[in-house]
Amino acid sequence: MAEGAQSVSELPVKRPREEEANGGVTVEMDVNDGGVPELPDCISSVIPGWFSEISPMRSTLIEGGKILFQGKSDYQNVIVFQSATYGKVLVLDGVIQLTERDECAYQEMISHLPLCSIPNRKRCWRNNVISMFAYDCISVPRVREQELLLRKIGLLAVSVLVIGGGDGGVLREVSRHASVEKIDICEIDKMVVDVSKEYFPSVAVGYDDPRVTLHIGDGVVFLKAVPEGTYDAVIVDSSDPIGPAQELFEKPFFESVAKALRPGGVVCTQAESIWLHMHIIEDIVANCRQIFKGSVNYAWTTVPTYPSGVIGFMLCSTEGPPVNFKNPINPIDADESHIKSKGPLKFYNAEIHSAAFCLPSFARKVIESKAN
Amino acid sequence: MAEGAQSVSELPVKRPREEEANGGVTVEMDVNDGGVPELPDCISSVIPGWFSEISPMRSTLIEGGKILFQGKSDYQNVIVFQSATYGKVLVLDGVIQLTERDECAYQEMISHLPLCSIPNRKRCWRNNVISMFAYDCISVPRVREQELLLRKIGLLAVSVLVIGGGDGGVLREVSRHASVEKIDICEIDKMVVDVSKEYFPSVAVGYDDPRVTLHIGDGVVFLKAVPEGTYDAVIVDSSDPIGPAQELFEKPFFESVAKALRPGGVVCTQAESIWLHMHIIEDIVANCRQIFKGSVNYAWTTVPTYPSGVIGFMLCSTEGPPVNFKNPINPIDADESHIKSKGPLKFYNAEIHSAAFCLPSFARKVIESKAN
Repeated sequence: MAEGAQSVSELPVKRPREEEANGGVTVEMDVNDGGVPELPDCISSVIPGWFSEISPMRSTLIEGGKILFQGKSDYQNVIVFQSATYGKVLVLDGVIQLTERDECAYQEMISHLPLCSIPNRKRCWRNNVISMFAYDCISVPRVREQELLLRKIGLLAVSVLVIGGGDGGVLREVSRHASVEKIDICEIDKMVVDVSKEYFPSVAVGYDDPRVTLHIGDGVVFLKAVPEGTYDAVIVDSSDPIGPAQELFEKPFFESVAKALRPGGVVCTQAESIWLHMHIIEDIVANCRQIFKGSVNYAWTTVPTYPSGVIGFMLCSTEGPPVNFKNPINPIDADESHIKSKGPLKFYNAEIHSAAFCLPSFARKVIESKAN
Repeated sequence: MAEGAQSVSELPVKRPREEEANGGVTVEMDVNDGGVPELPDCISSVIPGWFSEISPMRSTLIEGGKILFQGKSDYQNVIVFQSATYGKVLVLDGVIQLTERDECAYQEMISHLPLCSIPNRKRCWRNNVISMFAYDCISVPRVREQELLLRKIGLLAVSVLVIGGGDGGVLREVSRHASVEKIDICEIDKMVVDVSKEYFPSVAVGYDDPRVTLHIGDGVVFLKAVPEGTYDAVIVDSSDPIGPAQELFEKPFFESVAKALRPGGVVCTQAESIWLHMHIIEDIVANCRQIFKGSVNYAWTTVPTYPSGVIGFMLCSTEGPPVNFKNPINPIDADESHIKSKGPLKFYNAEIHSAAFCLPSFARKVIESKAN
């Protein structure tokens, strides 16, 4: 094992992306020096030096370098390898979760699509105060007094819950928003958090923010215990709705989310690929339409290393002040987007926010029929 | 030589997508009944039953069924195989050109992005006549006389040239536009045309349109012989700018295109992936900015079986009536989109037209710096 490199061997795959649904298989192969390791539960090692994720729908090969970490948590197999062109890659149970090269597209979109769509309460309050001054109907001490009161009852604080997202990338993006005062994250697998902090510091940087509180546990259980109307936004950065994550796509879970949100609060949840999973998306949309009484929308983005190269999101709001996801009202300031050594935004901008809701005709037809 | 097609000969075409540039390899494998056929120019059969296209940047595996056709033209190796989930697949020199499942995204976008951006002359003339009648300043015989004259000098006819696109998919899309009166196509490899007619009838249906004239030959040579100002639109459905197709991305070719277009005419050319080829795109944009004195824009779409899952297009117009590609002025009527058993549009709509021009920040930054 050169510098911690290991041959990929036993992979009793637990949550293959499409294994159970489609009869597919997940395969990893030796990414070391050409030796072919034993591969139980795998069809074949393919070409020495390449990682492969294989399913009947579409599969990905990435040229590999060295395996940097291989472990087995209580929940899944965890692998980190250095690829030739996508930087370091995190693989859970044979499924690529992120690569350094394209993670920006996923993390930025799943975070800013919801957060740029809800009002920045501090900014609203500030504008309100300015106009009150303009009409000379408030004094400075009165402003201070009011602000203290609003803070005390939590009316100026935007609070966000992340379910999953243990790598910390969503935290990194959420914490770009100065208006957010509280960020809870509930991730089931501590190994994902630890591995990310060690091997993906530019992703796990999200944990450095003092507004973040990490809860290791089951998101479904956590949500049930959340008092009604606690959060302004819930972001569900889950794996696929086949296997253990299945209940994160079903009505009872969406009901818990709706309950945990304030009126006019928003949820953004990973919602598969329009090219591969229209039958699943159809069901998710129908479920959301029943539970969320505000807006129900589908958006998508490009992520080269995910199956079919795209991934989608369900964006819904609860009854209350209306939310128009397609026209973001809370842009990220250039200043905000650079804070705390996170670097500038690489993918997200206001134009691509609105564009993400424009769907190919084949997908629009199905989704609109379920959403209306 | 079908339908007046002419043989032009030697082009030393070997057009591996990234082989020469990146040291990658292309691989085909046995998709028959387990026997391994001879596959010259291939490194390895990978997993029985799977087709793989491998490059250092990103590779694709598709579950295969049966090889339906395998041949070698004067220019390239041509394979058609039946895949498990993408329908039939056309492969040229190891590079996937189209699959039945996702070809709609490419063919519809490369065709309708330019054609929906230029005026429908017939509709303009009709509206003009209606307003002349409204003001009582024209008689019926005079309208007929004027229309005859306009037709005679070609002012009502929209004419389109397709370079490449031998499979006929772009023709199928162009011919949805009732306003188009003349469609020339110049494809170098007759085998591609013949194979498409035999194995991809729903794609090659474009050849059935009586407005189409097929020229078998080198697009560069063909364009040089075109009289100035002949076409309203040129669509370049080429392979990648590495190897023989390279000159289709360089200034002299763009100069020929600009010359062949009328004032305010448009070109749409395949322009690689923002995830993989920003250095190439940068050069293409800079070249186009020098040659095309109207608009210069970049748009993109999702195609799962292309490297990185996306492919882009350069859209440019010549000096003359301004063209705003982002706001299409010539929508395809629902009626038009159903004509001649082509089936309805699957991917394109006016919303996704405009959205295609919204770029991720990392790409926008580079492209805007070159485009302005």
